[in-house]
Amino acid sequence: MPKMKAAIFVEPGRIVLDEKPIPDIGPLDALVRVTTTTICGTDIHILKGEYPVAKGLTIGHEPVGVIEKLGSAVEGYREGQRVIAGAITPSGHSYACLAGCGSQDGVGTAHGWKAMGGWKFGNTIDGCQAEYVRVPDAMVNLAPVPDDLTDEQVLMCPDIMSTGFAGAEGGRIRIGDTVAIFAQGPIGLCATVGAKLSGAASIIAVDAIPERLQISKQLGASHVVNFKEENPLDAIMRITGGRGVDVAIESLGTQTTFESCLRALRPGGTLSSLGVYSSDLKIPLDAFSAGLGDNTIRTSLCPGGKERMRRLIAVIASGRVDLKPLVTHRFKLDDIESAYDLFGHQRDGVLKVAITP
Amino acid sequence: MPKMKAAIFVEPGRIVLDEKPIPDIGPLDALVRVTTTTICGTDIHILKGEYPVAKGLTIGHEPVGVIEKLGSAVEGYREGQRVIAGAITPSGHSYACLAGCGSQDGVGTAHGWKAMGGWKFGNTIDGCQAEYVRVPDAMVNLAPVPDDLTDEQVLMCPDIMSTGFAGAEGGRIRIGDTVAIFAQGPIGLCATVGAKLSGAASIIAVDAIPERLQISKQLGASHVVNFKEENPLDAIMRITGGRGVDVAIESLGTQTTFESCLRALRPGGTLSSLGVYSSDLKIPLDAFSAGLGDNTIRTSLCPGGKERMRRLIAVIASGRVDLKPLVTHRFKLDDIESAYDLFGHQRDGVLKVAITP
Amino acid sequence: MPKMKAAIFVEPGRIVLDEKPIPDIGPLDALVRVTTTTICGTDIHILKGEYPVAKGLTIGHEPVGVIEKLGSAVEGYREGQRVIAGAITPSGHSYACLAGCGSQDGVGTAHGWKAMGGWKFGNTIDGCQAEYVRVPDAMVNLAPVPDDLTDEQVLMCPDIMSTGFAGAEGGRIRIGDTVAIFAQGPIGLCATVGAKLSGAASIIAVDAIPERLQISKQLGASHVVNFKEENPLDAIMRITGGRGVDVAIESLGTQTTFESCLRALRPGGTLSSLGVYSSDLKIPLDAFSAGLGDNTIRTSLCPGGKERMRRLIAVIASGRVDLKPLVTHRFKLDDIESAYDLFGHQRDGVLKVAITP
Amino acid sequence: MPKMKAAIFVEPGRIVLDEKPIPDIGPLDALVRVTTTTICGTDIHILKGEYPVAKGLTIGHEPVGVIEKLGSAVEGYREGQRVIAGAITPSGHSYACLAGCGSQDGVGTAHGWKAMGGWKFGNTIDGCQAEYVRVPDAMVNLAPVPDDLTDEQVLMCPDIMSTGFAGAEGGRIRIGDTVAIFAQGPIGLCATVGAKLSGAASIIAVDAIPERLQISKQLGASHVVNFKEENPLDAIMRITGGRGVDVAIESLGTQTTFESCLRALRPGGTLSSLGVYSSDLKIPLDAFSAGLGDNTIRTSLCPGGKERMRRLIAVIASGRVDLKPLVTHRFKLDDIESAYDLFGHQRDGVLKVAITP
Repeated sequence: MPKMKAAIFVEPGRIVLDEKPIPDIGPLDALVRVTTTTICGTDIHILKGEYPVAKGLTIGHEPVGVIEKLGSAVEGYREGQRVIAGAITPSGHSYACLAGCGSQDGVGTAHGWKAMGGWKFGNTIDGCQAEYVRVPDAMVNLAPVPDDLTDEQVLMCPDIMSTGFAGAEGGRIRIGDTVAIFAQGPIGLCATVGAKLSGAASIIAVDAIPERLQISKQLGASHVVNFKEENPLDAIMRITGGRGVDVAIESLGTQTTFESCLRALRPGGTLSSLGVYSSDLKIPLDAFSAGLGDNTIRTSLCPGGKERMRRLIAVIASGRVDLKPLVTHRFKLDDIESAYDLFGHQRDGVLKVAITP
Repeated sequence: MPKMKAAIFVEPGRIVLDEKPIPDIGPLDALVRVTTTTICGTDIHILKGEYPVAKGLTIGHEPVGVIEKLGSAVEGYREGQRVIAGAITPSGHSYACLAGCGSQDGVGTAHGWKAMGGWKFGNTIDGCQAEYVRVPDAMVNLAPVPDDLTDEQVLMCPDIMSTGFAGAEGGRIRIGDTVAIFAQGPIGLCATVGAKLSGAASIIAVDAIPERLQISKQLGASHVVNFKEENPLDAIMRITGGRGVDVAIESLGTQTTFESCLRALRPGGTLSSLGVYSSDLKIPLDAFSAGLGDNTIRTSLCPGGKERMRRLIAVIASGRVDLKPLVTHRFKLDDIESAYDLFGHQRDGVLKVAITP
Repeated sequence: MPKMKAAIFVEPGRIVLDEKPIPDIGPLDALVRVTTTTICGTDIHILKGEYPVAKGLTIGHEPVGVIEKLGSAVEGYREGQRVIAGAITPSGHSYACLAGCGSQDGVGTAHGWKAMGGWKFGNTIDGCQAEYVRVPDAMVNLAPVPDDLTDEQVLMCPDIMSTGFAGAEGGRIRIGDTVAIFAQGPIGLCATVGAKLSGAASIIAVDAIPERLQISKQLGASHVVNFKEENPLDAIMRITGGRGVDVAIESLGTQTTFESCLRALRPGGTLSSLGVYSSDLKIPLDAFSAGLGDNTIRTSLCPGGKERMRRLIAVIASGRVDLKPLVTHRFKLDDIESAYDLFGHQRDGVLKVAITP
Repeated sequence: MPKMKAAIFVEPGRIVLDEKPIPDIGPLDALVRVTTTTICGTDIHILKGEYPVAKGLTIGHEPVGVIEKLGSAVEGYREGQRVIAGAITPSGHSYACLAGCGSQDGVGTAHGWKAMGGWKFGNTIDGCQAEYVRVPDAMVNLAPVPDDLTDEQVLMCPDIMSTGFAGAEGGRIRIGDTVAIFAQGPIGLCATVGAKLSGAASIIAVDAIPERLQISKQLGASHVVNFKEENPLDAIMRITGGRGVDVAIESLGTQTTFESCLRALRPGGTLSSLGVYSSDLKIPLDAFSAGLGDNTIRTSLCPGGKERMRRLIAVIASGRVDLKPLVTHRFKLDDIESAYDLFGHQRDGVLKVAITP
């Protein structure tokens, strides 16, 4: 049985590169030879043991690659074709999928829904920080990549672009809106891009790292606020004349940013939440108008599936958005442990790393 | 200056019937002679001092009456016409109103938004537990009542019917949905009616008072759960085969019901909140899929304005909904202090009282 | 190769019962033994040669039955299980499906969209007026039927209930709306039910057959108009006080009804169209406010897939809707040619026929 | 009674500058001294007698100016304040307005709706091609202009920017959509801008005037098609790989462009119509999938009111959009007849003219 290299979760604190068999595929699957992938903040949670996965699992959920082999029931693709798959790989046939909510895909459950069930790569099945990855439900998930786009140009599509844009979409941003975005890491930066694409007139981005605020301006923020220099709520009320924002996007996953989002909203405003939280959240009574503020809080998990990927690729191909600046470092798969070290410790201004097997 | 009787907030614990001048009106106002009104749970909060209003204010926000006098700039109505006005009386011209969010009407503020600003009667201006009430922005707020409907038939329109239906609307209920409603007081019962009108296939109503559960079945619940007899989450999971509900409506305003709503939801489900909370809320991490459940939490304040009232009256007039069973007791305005006593202590199976000056 | 009986399109004017091989199935398919089916107005169009299908095709797209055999890649079902499948059988994996528009499923096309491509049974593949039917993409399309519902209770789900409800949904009917529905054949009657389930306060149903208007009242119409006795637009303006309706549903497919719908609308109203038209349509300038009326015209093809079917079955199971009155006649499959004759000539007050192999 | 100059409709073919009394104002009105205005395509229809208005009416519906006097009941503004008002001036208190459809404002009608009733300036009341204009319902309609924006920067807000953006909004454009826009006059160019602000990935603009296509590219079109050089449907199918567009925007008002929009759509696509038609429209059966294509046709009349204007001004103020290139010619009010001559005959590459009293 032929072998491949893969980044494997061994135990909390240890993800190592090791050898594994190249995956077998079933009739609906595809085997993809990974040409570029990356590391996500969620992978760091896994590394630290904050998010539990099975020992021995291959990590990673952001694949760019080439179709190596197609399952017997797969039609409409050819071997050798260049593709991506989303971080979320819906089955296409659960009740959740057919209700338009593939991220909560419950295939295999009695009733068809499972919280976060669409997230399979590097979570419930082997992921793509490896030489090869098995893509389930290939006809639902494989999105062809146009020849004139490089791997790095589409590397953000599977997760952070899809997630960040979902933050804008979840806020139902309309032309002329004022939007605040708390945290400008890779996801928050993509939310900034999404807010711009959604027609926001004012985009107020909050972070404390000057380099990130710099990129944020480049990508669409009209105002940036360094929360170490100014209270961000004061800044937002100053910028909006005391009105607050129509939409606030949370892209960090902490009580502080969640609460700041609520407090930044005008009455009737929407909090769109992208963060992965690690403890209970508190909604302060006064920040919530005692339940009478006509507010909406909406959480989004990265949308997947080939139609979503097609749309994101179309945005990249249009030239309207250039996310290559997010790729700050490049590693060979052989050096992925160093990449984890750099990315996990947020050293050297790292935003995203490109890993090439 | 002619006098009238009015129920006045004197201090926490004391609402008394006293004499006051009949209100003057400005060019955009109407003076309405109240023929029937009622007491709301919110009025009890005011009575207890839990919600602060100015001493001397006339309480009450649910008027049915007859136009006594029209402001000089008011057109389209005639004196003697029978009308209602919503509990919420938007100005029609603030930015909030023009954005379709009249409950957060910020007329008079710099930027046009004010949390709960649309709620004026018995909150920021004199209310309608009186012989006469001044209705601001009359052309926006006065809704004619058809001759063939009694006062009691439309008495629920200004507040609880509008609020309860907003719970169903805020949940974006679709034909075939499964909906749970926590608490079956007057608001929750109206939410049950709203869920039925929205096409819900299963409506699971939760309360502990058998009489309320009985009326709930009459008004539309397909399943009722007495939470003193069965854990309501167990019951919901039993009824839904472990799936959870598409929409959960909170109509009490407590941490327990709020949290139960979250836990009752299927992944991707919506919590529609109607309750007036009196302390911070907690969102348990596990009930929120760590922020990755594609959930929506939406709060609604009673929608007002004459178009809203017209729609609600049309529903009553159609015969599809009969809310008269909610009126369990009747009082003269002269006896309103007794009515407060009965209603405030929830004695004698009271749901709503009708007060006639 | 075992044989079965099937109703086959031979040539315009001739659908005959004949023998055919029991279908083979592929890995994603299921073979269903049909226990009850029916004839649709569309089948009559096919019979008359007005809608072209291949000679030799088995007709019919409304199956109730039992799973006889499952494809090798199908999971989550068992042989012997009682199921329905929608008239529309989306693949679940085309771009159209993943965009939430399975009725325009373009699986096999270059770009994933095909007008009406989701309609396969009795159109592009063999249908279900037969002893057995092959259901493609079984995991997407098979919806289990609860034991306590009879075949006839769910017989309307695959097509006319789904289509009729789509008329209400396409109109975005809200609580308190006034809705007119032109034509009260089986589809129009289901649109009436859908309008009621959507919260319409006034439902004005238009037809010329007294029996249909009678059933219409039973199913939810608040007003019925016999267009042979009164001009329906006059009637609608009389009933609505000259305002017009919020939503008009076209359920016949003629210029007259389409145009009447437009003229019945208030400014800003929505025409929801269900009819299958057979010639160009004209939009009269004056009925369209020269393009400045903020109007919406929306056409809907019957939504399919198991989640849609599940919702419709849930509505039936709730007891809120009883569509059995629509089944006016019953035939054995052996007598299907007589059934076509009766149904095609609309004799004897026929609404829908039940066919049992 | 003091006099002012105004452009007056005398008879078909004649709009002349003449003297008229400066308007009186009522309690809810404002008198605005016009500092800049412009001529609209609709004004040319009026000039030609194609759209009937009363003889003697002052024409024009796009005012930038300064508040000269406020009605006695108007609050929240000050004399001397710089403002615009939308072409459409909703009352804020009709049922149509309260239903969010102010363009069909039916104040004064029995039921509160009137087709195009929100369009008052230069249609049912005196317009703004004059030294002064009376603005009805001032608190609903006056939108302050920030000091740092010039008159010409906000001159497109009252009509063509609002209308063009409504074309994008009416199409419900989503991030990644492909959009075609037929005709690139001022409205079509603004629709192009609106499509870009809505996140369209591909924007295909169709016209025959090279200068307009040039500006179109500048403002956001990704592809421009000169229909004199290539059949636009062929071009669209070439560009989209035969798929068609998600949204087609009609911005001319002819059968040809309307029909081309329909034919350009993918199945399930939306036609957003902005044009003012002058004859009946035909929907070809084959371009409409016989009514089974899940298509939407939506018409929009320019949204007005101060909240709409505030949003548009915010977009201009953000620097995201610069519509000054649309102002190709400038005239004094004294020379407005020459301006009509130039604009009406589309000479000299004119797009929009600025008129300054």
